[in-house]
Amino acid sequence: MNDSQTTTMKDIAEKFGVSVSTVSRALSGNKRVREDKRDAIQKYATEHNFYPNDIAKSLRFSKKKPVKIIGVIVPELTHYYFSSVLSGIEERASERDYRIIIAMSKESYEREVQLCQMFEAHQVCGVIVSQAKATTVYDHFKSLIAKGMTLVFFDRICTGVSASLVVVDDYMGAFNAVTHLINTGCKRIAFYGMRGNAVIGKNRFNGYKDALLKAGLKLDEQLIFECDNRADAENITPAILKKFTPPDAFFCVNDDTAIGVMYTAKRMGLRIPEDISVCGFTNGERAVACDPQLTTVEQRGVEVGREAADILINKVEGISPFDKIEKRVIRTRLVVRGSSR
Amino acid sequence: MNDSQTTTMKDIAEKFGVSVSTVSRALSGNKRVREDKRDAIQKYATEHNFYPNDIAKSLRFSKKKPVKIIGVIVPELTHYYFSSVLSGIEERASERDYRIIIAMSKESYEREVQLCQMFEAHQVCGVIVSQAKATTVYDHFKSLIAKGMTLVFFDRICTGVSASLVVVDDYMGAFNAVTHLINTGCKRIAFYGMRGNAVIGKNRFNGYKDALLKAGLKLDEQLIFECDNRADAENITPAILKKFTPPDAFFCVNDDTAIGVMYTAKRMGLRIPEDISVCGFTNGERAVACDPQLTTVEQRGVEVGREAADILINKVEGISPFDKIEKRVIRTRLVVRGSSR
Repeated sequence: MNDSQTTTMKDIAEKFGVSVSTVSRALSGNKRVREDKRDAIQKYATEHNFYPNDIAKSLRFSKKKPVKIIGVIVPELTHYYFSSVLSGIEERASERDYRIIIAMSKESYEREVQLCQMFEAHQVCGVIVSQAKATTVYDHFKSLIAKGMTLVFFDRICTGVSASLVVVDDYMGAFNAVTHLINTGCKRIAFYGMRGNAVIGKNRFNGYKDALLKAGLKLDEQLIFECDNRADAENITPAILKKFTPPDAFFCVNDDTAIGVMYTAKRMGLRIPEDISVCGFTNGERAVACDPQLTTVEQRGVEVGREAADILINKVEGISPFDKIEKRVIRTRLVVRGSSR
Repeated sequence: MNDSQTTTMKDIAEKFGVSVSTVSRALSGNKRVREDKRDAIQKYATEHNFYPNDIAKSLRFSKKKPVKIIGVIVPELTHYYFSSVLSGIEERASERDYRIIIAMSKESYEREVQLCQMFEAHQVCGVIVSQAKATTVYDHFKSLIAKGMTLVFFDRICTGVSASLVVVDDYMGAFNAVTHLINTGCKRIAFYGMRGNAVIGKNRFNGYKDALLKAGLKLDEQLIFECDNRADAENITPAILKKFTPPDAFFCVNDDTAIGVMYTAKRMGLRIPEDISVCGFTNGERAVACDPQLTTVEQRGVEVGREAADILINKVEGISPFDKIEKRVIRTRLVVRGSSR
């Protein structure tokens, strides 16, 4: 009577002339399998004492096959952009039969070094990293590469190491956003961001600058501010809006800062977008929660994650040469909402 | 001259009469180490050719020690609550020298089964899970437990399996939130949520109900709605606010729904909180992006994650007995902001 020992998913698949995965879907009630076929397969399985746990046994993971693991280091897990990239990495890795170990550096250089060591000890196939703000020395990355491990950087790329990377087109993202502000009648567009050494900030600033120049507007130093978070935006914006000739628009390097500007402007009795246009960069959860909803540059984190996983796996599997540095640039997309005219 | 072979972090620590971790911090420029001491240690390290890569070598990970891994299954990675729980799990696991493999079920039963199999094959120490919506059969969980693996559920707990779990006190969270609405003068408080079978929804509904009864208000079926997302909230709220005796407050089972209510009410010319109070549940990124900022019940995801990791590791290490089912209830916290009086 213990039929379940002998009936396998493969037997059922052969019986019905379908694939094993169709049987699996049918047994789990997936609607992608036609109803009559689903019912027939389920009935047959029940009659032969083939229960869901057997589905598990029949699936392709087996103890014989080593699990292939990719290490991932992000500065924070609760940051929307990083979790969207992780989601893309996990999705693509999973499709290609890899798993990911995720760890946070918490912006600490020390922790990043520890994690690289841990990944090395654990013999992962490769590591995908967005580096910590505190990192200025790159020996831990170089050491991984020297040991034949594939490294792929994203977002905060490491300029001190020759490794593949995936970035979003920050320059064009900013250029298009500022061009949109100009095309909708804004003439005095403030820039809120960091101009320092970070590549991301520099590219966004250059996109802002070139959009102004292309439109025949001149770059006004009085409109450029070091500000990249909401608290700072709420601190400095009142004085800026009280100027004799205040800005008529704000281009901010992230959504959080843009929301700080909107909040402040509204408290001062200004209307958005009639008096002030505001544009952010990220398109996270916040962008549709604020009122009006935020015009922003979509950073496409999921796509960044998918590309990073593909580059890494292609190298691990020899589809692309190990020593070829690959650089993928993901195009951003301007999402126009109520905060701009 | 190759002094770096012989100088270790321990040597430096002894030289300065500090701990190894202080040396490590000093060398990475951490400001927790007093400036003069930091400079002295850095100078000494440089003079003795002790470079950052040596820091890595001195840290506690070594190839001899097997890396201990916890498997984590979440329905989605981009959901704020799940990423905050992950953050807590990673933090605590890391403190206790464990690593985490994170995988998404994408709400699919099939995928969840695959992941459990994968974790079994990979011989992780245990698995922390928030189960997929599609899961109604629990053989894959039972199978892990039968094989001696520790399972800890959080948020969406599995009622079909005897396993440890961490939940937030949804009942008291709702009770306190609704009591706050009543205490600030609201008398007709609508409930937006799911009453179905989900334990979470039921507890929040009961908290709502008991707060009304305790205050001497009666439960009015006309004020209870099946609605748990923003799109639905924006669809049903206009008709509800046009009633002859409309609600004067809304208690919603998540922030997203609450924001939909606020947005709609404002579009209809109502003032928040003067005409309508709104309260959510989550306290994610959205809650401070909306205008006014949202009064909401903080779910403390990071704390949930930390507790889940502790339960699991305590069992793995024999600190608590393997077969004892542990249930931890994390207290919620009401965060009062501008959307309520």
